[in-house]
Amino acid sequence: MQKVQFKIKGKRTVDLVATDNENLLDAARRAGVMIDSPCNGNATCGKCKVKIVSGQVKTTETRHISEEEAAAGIVLSCNSNIIGDIEVEVPDLASSFVNEMQITDLSKNENDNIKHVRKKLIKNGMTNASRLWSEVIQLPLPNLEDNIGDEDRLKRYFKQNLGYNDIVMSLNVMRKIPDAFREKEFLIEVVYLKRRDVAEILDIKPANGNKPVLYGIALDIGTTSVSACLVDMNTNEIVTKASMGNAQVKYGADVINRIVYSQKSGGLENLRRAIVDESINMLIEKLVKATNIAKEDIYEVCAAGNTTMNHLLLGINPDYLRREPFIPVINDIPEMKCLELGININPEGKIYLAPSVASYVGGDITAGVFAVPIWIREGFSMLVDLGTNGEIVFGNKDFLMTCACSAGPAFEGGEISCGTRAVPGAIEQIYINDSDLRPFYNTIGHQSPIGICGSGIIDLICEMKRTGIIDGRGRIDRTLDHPRIRFDEYNIGQYILYSKELDNGSRDVYITEIDISSFIKAKGAVFSAIYTLMESLEMPIDVLDDIYVAGGIGTNLVIKNAIALGMLPDIPVEKYHYIGNSSMQGCYLALTLTEGKDKIREISKNMTYMELSVYPSYMDEFISACFIPHTNLKLFPSVEY
Amino acid sequence: MQKVQFKIKGKRTVDLVATDNENLLDAARRAGVMIDSPCNGNATCGKCKVKIVSGQVKTTETRHISEEEAAAGIVLSCNSNIIGDIEVEVPDLASSFVNEMQITDLSKNENDNIKHVRKKLIKNGMTNASRLWSEVIQLPLPNLEDNIGDEDRLKRYFKQNLGYNDIVMSLNVMRKIPDAFREKEFLIEVVYLKRRDVAEILDIKPANGNKPVLYGIALDIGTTSVSACLVDMNTNEIVTKASMGNAQVKYGADVINRIVYSQKSGGLENLRRAIVDESINMLIEKLVKATNIAKEDIYEVCAAGNTTMNHLLLGINPDYLRREPFIPVINDIPEMKCLELGININPEGKIYLAPSVASYVGGDITAGVFAVPIWIREGFSMLVDLGTNGEIVFGNKDFLMTCACSAGPAFEGGEISCGTRAVPGAIEQIYINDSDLRPFYNTIGHQSPIGICGSGIIDLICEMKRTGIIDGRGRIDRTLDHPRIRFDEYNIGQYILYSKELDNGSRDVYITEIDISSFIKAKGAVFSAIYTLMESLEMPIDVLDDIYVAGGIGTNLVIKNAIALGMLPDIPVEKYHYIGNSSMQGCYLALTLTEGKDKIREISKNMTYMELSVYPSYMDEFISACFIPHTNLKLFPSVEY
Repeated sequence: MQKVQFKIKGKRTVDLVATDNENLLDAARRAGVMIDSPCNGNATCGKCKVKIVSGQVKTTETRHISEEEAAAGIVLSCNSNIIGDIEVEVPDLASSFVNEMQITDLSKNENDNIKHVRKKLIKNGMTNASRLWSEVIQLPLPNLEDNIGDEDRLKRYFKQNLGYNDIVMSLNVMRKIPDAFREKEFLIEVVYLKRRDVAEILDIKPANGNKPVLYGIALDIGTTSVSACLVDMNTNEIVTKASMGNAQVKYGADVINRIVYSQKSGGLENLRRAIVDESINMLIEKLVKATNIAKEDIYEVCAAGNTTMNHLLLGINPDYLRREPFIPVINDIPEMKCLELGININPEGKIYLAPSVASYVGGDITAGVFAVPIWIREGFSMLVDLGTNGEIVFGNKDFLMTCACSAGPAFEGGEISCGTRAVPGAIEQIYINDSDLRPFYNTIGHQSPIGICGSGIIDLICEMKRTGIIDGRGRIDRTLDHPRIRFDEYNIGQYILYSKELDNGSRDVYITEIDISSFIKAKGAVFSAIYTLMESLEMPIDVLDDIYVAGGIGTNLVIKNAIALGMLPDIPVEKYHYIGNSSMQGCYLALTLTEGKDKIREISKNMTYMELSVYPSYMDEFISACFIPHTNLKLFPSVEY
Repeated sequence: MQKVQFKIKGKRTVDLVATDNENLLDAARRAGVMIDSPCNGNATCGKCKVKIVSGQVKTTETRHISEEEAAAGIVLSCNSNIIGDIEVEVPDLASSFVNEMQITDLSKNENDNIKHVRKKLIKNGMTNASRLWSEVIQLPLPNLEDNIGDEDRLKRYFKQNLGYNDIVMSLNVMRKIPDAFREKEFLIEVVYLKRRDVAEILDIKPANGNKPVLYGIALDIGTTSVSACLVDMNTNEIVTKASMGNAQVKYGADVINRIVYSQKSGGLENLRRAIVDESINMLIEKLVKATNIAKEDIYEVCAAGNTTMNHLLLGINPDYLRREPFIPVINDIPEMKCLELGININPEGKIYLAPSVASYVGGDITAGVFAVPIWIREGFSMLVDLGTNGEIVFGNKDFLMTCACSAGPAFEGGEISCGTRAVPGAIEQIYINDSDLRPFYNTIGHQSPIGICGSGIIDLICEMKRTGIIDGRGRIDRTLDHPRIRFDEYNIGQYILYSKELDNGSRDVYITEIDISSFIKAKGAVFSAIYTLMESLEMPIDVLDDIYVAGGIGTNLVIKNAIALGMLPDIPVEKYHYIGNSSMQGCYLALTLTEGKDKIREISKNMTYMELSVYPSYMDEFISACFIPHTNLKLFPSVEY
């Protein structure tokens, strides 16, 4: 038995009695102390650093801890065991997540796409209205002749005046009826959902003279990032948007590590709480405060997440998603009350989750396809969604084929030394001067650099290749002697974009050979998935009229560079459209078009899932694609090297 | 500020700081100390007696407190105000209610009727099966080719093998799927509700080799009594029955007093808890213990209560039920999860509440009509339900008319000095010897007498009238000098059936002139309701082929005596059928016949409610009927006096 005291920087201390030789990361989790651990304790990501202030731990040497750090008592917690009483200093993870939250507008690409698609869908027959309605109603006063019950009176009004066949409501709404009806002499406001010929009543209040305010939320639940748009349901306009990191990251950066963690005692519940309480509810809180509206006026959430995210949100064991034959528990999740999931909006508010197709093609993709929209076109087009998983959908109005590959969080800046999501301060565009190898870059919002987002990494690796800093495998030329190129004690090369030393900066922003190698694997996974999918259909890549690239990679993705990197097929740049967060756009459209949700369900049923692991050629393709641009240069005729 | 200590006999003490001059009953309720108070603090019932052990209260003289009692410090709590520090001894109400709970079988009348009616309904086209089903299913094992999700796999089985169009389930059931499926290699037990072509899955477990056990409960929620039948849903047989007093009685004996109490702070919630936690859940506990089954194996409750009981059960403000124009909040309550109401069966279990027609014609009547069944007959018949309210339904397969009158709890033995429900020990049949006025009687179960139930009171008053002990107004002949007749200090006459003194008994069982007067009012209300209903239709009483008398009045009701008392119309005795608890029988039938619940709903929609208070003649009729048998003897030609 050892006494452990965790000191959370600038906050509080937590005491725990640890067992002999207990793993320090496990002990911290047991004590409820959060330590960032994207690789879930495999000592590969190097994020779970803590400082031993007093006492000693048994730890193993690792490339993630420099000699200086080791001397200062810094260890990887996953790599250390408790052998005596210790005091441990831990970074304040919770507040760093909160601080990361951003209120932003939709990007121009995103705004343009949803406006364009919404118009197109309405032209194709969809109703230009959400299914959420409100009415101010004067019911006739009861008397001894007209003495039907309150609920029957409301039902009669909906039948005779609004053309509904029936009304339904929950117990909580029933409880509001008697006093709400009588406060203003049966003049009431009713909020309801139109469900074909049935009105589901969500709220009843005495009329206050104003039209009820109604809000909805379009929610994208990504493995790495979570974003929410607040929508005014009376006008169908987006009021504002907020995004933040998925708080589950501390239990693992990708879905596999989180599924592994979910199998530990209390793991599933911790993951569920991280997404509900520490991510979604905090985003809602932020939106509500920023716009000064009441949470009770939000009646609907339209959400999309991948299949694992859906399982974790619902608290359903996701273990069989990662075990062959990769079976989800549920794809098509019925609409629920937000309250059931612990999401804080109006207590009667609903959540719709876009249905999944398979373990690795989730609601983010079905919602994304809805927003593109491949499914109403005559010609062939493709959606490439670059998230922590890469998903590909190919087809037209007659068929939809889909597959998925594991790209890791690199596209969103995850598990990259100086990676960041596409938020203000992220380096998003880079050019390297041929002659002196000096970098030039733009950051989002033109603030001082905090890291590199996906589009920046693509530009950077491309430019490093073009200028000969790296070779096709991503290895830095050892013959270069340049102040921005350095090698660490393990001989791992780095290229420095911004540093205290060279740029008088507030921090160091650089890329390592390991980062480049991770990114090459990510792009290789995506390219070989596209290639294998088209090969299996025996269709050449140039049948494609359009390729829609989606994901949180950064608004200023340079397609030419993504092609030069060998990430996207070498077809004319004009055929590419970077549309940003397609999943969020699908949610917005489903929220604001009456038939939207049913249409996404229909799309999901029409999608044919191709399990790449069943194709023996996929692994070979992947290996060939792990090169810049590709080991088979014939696939990239336009790329000059 | 005064210190009050409540000593609950043989249990615990509760301390409270009371305000100056605070009412003692209010203070007790505030302290969570339960005191029986059927009249809700009007000092009319005399039930809220407590003993002041030390200190003093300001109290008013009342006929309910004898001189001896007053000397011993006994007061009516509703009638007393706190003027200094006191200690108060209070009877243990909670355990007296528990002790009153009885496990019984259905009476022969009840059993005969439900068997007869069930057969008849099946012959008329209803399905001889409940909508609750279970299956043991071997699902095909998933593999990379057949890799649909678990829920889709189950849905496919239900579509292909059982002919359903869809399945639905709650989040809790979804959460059970992945591990339940895999524990026995996809051999599972599924419990579900058949909802036309949709199966609502209530439970999924790994198969254990046995057919799942399934139970349902038929529940009658009366104002005075609550009864529950446990039903084996595989065989549709009644396993056992339990009944007890409605624990709300302590807040008022009738619905009006309870509605008044519901308007006090916390009153509605106290009433809700009394019926859910202290009545229904205790009955379920008792049934489960008596039969050694698991609560989790009960999946359905089919319940009937009057409109006020439904509002209180749901926690809906009932105040407008008692105010002209007498408007219920909701008549047709949608099916809910028992969990939502706090009723403890399987967490997925459902509760169906028979719909009401109006404020004073509730689900107990619609369920009762279903069980009679008036609604499939060619000829005219009538249901007379003698509960705390008396309800009348008249009609045939083409129409149903209904009305209600306030009878008070007398028929169930409530507010009668020595009244009791029809439980073992209740005196149910009485004969008085003409020559010496000695009483002879039978008790239910032939145990020593504990009180008089409804049928006993009818016999007793009839016999007292026949032998000349009382006159037509119920007044005891002052010229009689008889050991069994005595007069108290207020000159109120009593007739003693059983006493310590005369019979060496364990207690006194007697009837007072006040009891007789209450009972005459109750029977007068019922008779005048029947009379007014038939008059308004301009139909003579002898169009009736059958009159079904229902209620907890006692299994051995002698119809001849009820006629002689002027409670029921004077038509041939053969036309009368005493069927006991018709509401409970309706619930049983709705539980065990697939179409039952929909049929009750249909019946409720077809019932026309007649508000007696709108008929000016009703009050006159009532006054004329408050006489034995009636002031107009022509209405009772067969009764000899």
